[in-house]
Amino acid sequence: MPIPAVKALFFDVFGTVVDWRNSIARETEAILKPKGFALDWIAFADAWRGEYQPGMEEVRTGKIPFSKLDVLHRRNLERILPRFKVSGLDEPTLANLNRAWHRLDGWPDSTPGLKRLHTKFLLAPVSNGNIALMANLARHNGFPWDAILGSEIAGDYKPKPVVYLASAAAFDLPPHECMMVAAHSGDLAAAAATGLKTAHVARPNEYGPGTGEAGPKVPVDVAATSFLDLAEKLGA
Amino acid sequence: MPIPAVKALFFDVFGTVVDWRNSIARETEAILKPKGFALDWIAFADAWRGEYQPGMEEVRTGKIPFSKLDVLHRRNLERILPRFKVSGLDEPTLANLNRAWHRLDGWPDSTPGLKRLHTKFLLAPVSNGNIALMANLARHNGFPWDAILGSEIAGDYKPKPVVYLASAAAFDLPPHECMMVAAHSGDLAAAAATGLKTAHVARPNEYGPGTGEAGPKVPVDVAATSFLDLAEKLGA
Repeated sequence: MPIPAVKALFFDVFGTVVDWRNSIARETEAILKPKGFALDWIAFADAWRGEYQPGMEEVRTGKIPFSKLDVLHRRNLERILPRFKVSGLDEPTLANLNRAWHRLDGWPDSTPGLKRLHTKFLLAPVSNGNIALMANLARHNGFPWDAILGSEIAGDYKPKPVVYLASAAAFDLPPHECMMVAAHSGDLAAAAATGLKTAHVARPNEYGPGTGEAGPKVPVDVAATSFLDLAEKLGA
Repeated sequence: MPIPAVKALFFDVFGTVVDWRNSIARETEAILKPKGFALDWIAFADAWRGEYQPGMEEVRTGKIPFSKLDVLHRRNLERILPRFKVSGLDEPTLANLNRAWHRLDGWPDSTPGLKRLHTKFLLAPVSNGNIALMANLARHNGFPWDAILGSEIAGDYKPKPVVYLASAAAFDLPPHECMMVAAHSGDLAAAAATGLKTAHVARPNEYGPGTGEAGPKVPVDVAATSFLDLAEKLGA
């Protein structure tokens, strides 16, 4: 099912390209366990991620000026630590914990799928993550991005239309020549409303077995089960 | 001479990483010669590049709002065509001519040198070229950028300080952990004034044999003769 006009693929990253949940659990355990803390590490990851949308909503609604995701992650971390009875961490430890988001692992098909897709399309993350975070994830995993687009170049957060439109404009492409790839139907619906093509990739275990979207809940141009399947369906 | 604090290298691109002069001469000849035009192609390249600084100066001084370099290149093209008695080109041909700037070749040491430097440093173009132009040059040459920074994310043109400082901020680094690499002493002086480290790479033939800077005309942290020499000197 090649879609001839599409020249660039835009990727949601957290959950779609990388497994934030198991990675954050592993990274936080590696930092805090040697300091004597024994938490439910998966619950800690879920709690930290649970502050993600409320934090961005303060930016989207104009309550606070645009702040990079690294800054929101840090504030969210300090909000959840007391809930897990973690205190007394020094600044280098807090900074290292926050950088756990720069060390997330891709799903097993992510890097090989992206490398195949890169032979045919311009590729960019259109994520709410900031440029440094995305650059470090790319180095950690070997993601072949052509540029890092998304929230930081737009100065706002998805699903605000400006994030999709600023990313298409950065590649000098009209929206219909760009395709948003995500495991989340809400992201795809917002992208489609700005004129982008859309591809759903199922990540059924994002929040634990059977918790993610097994398929799209909105109309999409392509539905795939992995990035390799997506490459197949897009003729790459 | 490793400089321990440096974590990211920022690159000037036109003249430093790519040979714009011979590439533009070749590309314009390939497009216009079959249409019956016989120009001095090198003179045409020089004339087009000659409009570069005046065009950006209108943005720097606030005379016109920020416009991507692709837009300025197109306007500059239309300014020089009559001087070479070229007229009657249709829109696809003009667009294709303007995209010649997306098809410039790196100097022979650029790609292998960047690949070596990439093993040790974050790498980004901090160029006056726009994101799409930089992304296409990277694909054409295999440049391993971690992100595309520079004028488009800053909304202004070098040597304005904001371009260097916005690029360092995008990588979440203080200026002294970033090093500007350029073949032009003016660029390096402006970068140093914002707190960046600097490396000069000699491109003595940029405007023809013996016309470029054979060495830095300002104090720099490193002076190199090629990107491979730079890698050697930075311990990469």
